Order: sequence, then C-alpha cells, then structure tokens
Amino acid sequence: MAGEHDVRPGEVAVALPEATDAGLIFIGRIHTPWTTRREAPHQGSPDGPLCRIEVFDPWLPALAGLDRHERIEVFYWLHRSRRDLVTQCRASDGIARGTFSLRTPVRPNPIGTSIVQLVGIEGCVVLVRGLDCLDGTPLLDLKPDRKPAPPAPLPSGAG
Amino acid sequence: MAGEHDVRPGEVAVALPEATDAGLIFIGRIHTPWTTRREAPHQGSPDGPLCRIEVFDPWLPALAGLDRHERIEVFYWLHRSRRDLVTQCRASDGIARGTFSLRTPVRPNPIGTSIVQLVGIEGCVVLVRGLDCLDGTPLLDLKPDRKPAPPAPLPSGAG
Repeated sequence: MAGEHDVRPGEVAVALPEATDAGLIFIGRIHTPWTTRREAPHQGSPDGPLCRIEVFDPWLPALAGLDRHERIEVFYWLHRSRRDLVTQCRASDGIARGTFSLRTPVRPNPIGTSIVQLVGIEGCVVLVRGLDCLDGTPLLDLKPDRKPAPPAPLPSGAG
Repeated sequence: MAGEHDVRPGEVAVALPEATDAGLIFIGRIHTPWTTRREAPHQGSPDGPLCRIEVFDPWLPALAGLDRHERIEVFYWLHRSRRDLVTQCRASDGIARGTFSLRTPVRPNPIGTSIVQLVGIEGCVVLVRGLDCLDGTPLLDLKPDRKPAPPAPLPSGAG
C-alpha cells in the first residue's frame, strides 16, 4: 500500500477494508514520456507530447468508430498510488485538505481520467495529446468526451 | 455476467479473463429516483432532481473542503452492466458500433462518471443535481471538476 507519497504531518491514513467489492481488468497500457510524478504535468494539455495508448486483445474491435471523435476520455489505474489517506497536505503549504476536495492520484480508488485530443488510431495503438499519467499506466477504458452540459439554471431571483 | 442488456444481432461478446487485475472499494451509495435504465436520463442535467450520495465510514473526513466547489465529478460502479461486449447496437438503428466509441454503461470496466452541481453536504450525505445513474449505485470517488482545458491549437495553416 506504500507508494511514492509518504504520509506528511497533518495527513490522516485509515485502515483499508481487507476485501474489495469489484474487480478491474487492465485492457491496455499507456506510454508517455514521464516516469516520475515530479516530471509529469499536473494536468495534460492538448498541445502536450504525443502519447501512445496500447489496447490489448480481445478489446481491439471495441475501437471501431472511435476515430470519428476529436476528443476522447481516457480512464486509467494509478497503480503507484497509495489508497488510504482521507486528508492530504500539499508540500507547498502544509494545509490538510480532504481527499475528495483534491484531484490528487492518492485516493481510495485511484482512477484517473483525462480528456485528450485524438490524433489517430494505428492498429492497436491510439495516438493522443493531453495525458498527464506515468509511462506504463494500466488502461481501464476509452470513451468519447461527453456532450457539453446545458448551462446551469440561474439562482432564484437572479433573473 | 448477464445484465439488463441482452446480446442483439450484430453485437459481439468476448470471453472475459478469469482473474482481475485490481480491486475496487465501494465507498458509498448513490440514491436517485430511477430503478431501471428505461426511466433514467441518458445524461444528467444540472436542473435534474436532487440526488443523495451517501458516503460510508471511514471516508467522511475526506469530504472536508469539497463544499468549496460548485461542480464536482462523481465516479460510480455500474453494477448491473455486462462487461463482455466489444461491439454494440442501439435498439433504434441496429448499427454495430465499437464499445469505446459509445458512452454506454456496457463496457469492460463499467465505471460511470457525471459532472454534477453540488447543492450541499449534510453529515455523510452529499446533495447534488445532474446524476443519471440508478438508485443504489455503488460510489467509487468524488473529485472537484477539472479546470477548463486551454483551447486546442489551430490546425497548421489555419491561422
């Protein structure tokens, strides 16, 4: 359960349940230029480096039609993250914050998502720009980006 | 592995691996008005019904500071979905499409996400609008919505 993140003063770790409730299948592997969190960007950019998402058998037929989408959402498993912190401190300010108020990789279910630009598909490899995860990250899913949400309603009395 | 989705003509199912690669912890439960996919909206709306996200122990301290965010991302496990289809057909048109080109709940790792409006937090319950999942859906994670991505670069020669 240890990871690259050591517990800092003010952070709280809890005991994880002994059993898990559902199982994930790694359906591919993501290739990026970054091997440590220190090197990786905090959030990917559409003009970031070209990254390769390798899709494993038997999932290749599931790529059909994905190339019609300019922006796709990539789901991956942050396999190096510890999972037991309920509060976390940034090294920069030392203030404790709840894990759910942060987009840090350290969380009970370390699932990462990025919205990326689809550059092309070559066989089992999906080429994209906009990732921020480490080289070798296990792939969980690919989806077209969601349609834009309708605007939020005005607060009552505001109109 | 069966679910509410029966295999239609043109759809392709594959054999799932016998072992899984990582385990998920259900950290709460989502309460919505919908008990079947037929009733539920395809995509949630910020003026949709108020829904209750119940967070289990020991994860309550992880909510600290979440109330400073107007829009949050909810991750959940689509527990009634089959996982073995690589191509799928909408009932409406019968055209086979790759699973990764769709946002259907039927996928190898049936993780759903919604961007919702945070209405309030009362103890272990997070009140939101904008969900589309079924009543009783297991909760996987809560995060602040991501910052808007910078605009995509212009195609070369377009400027």
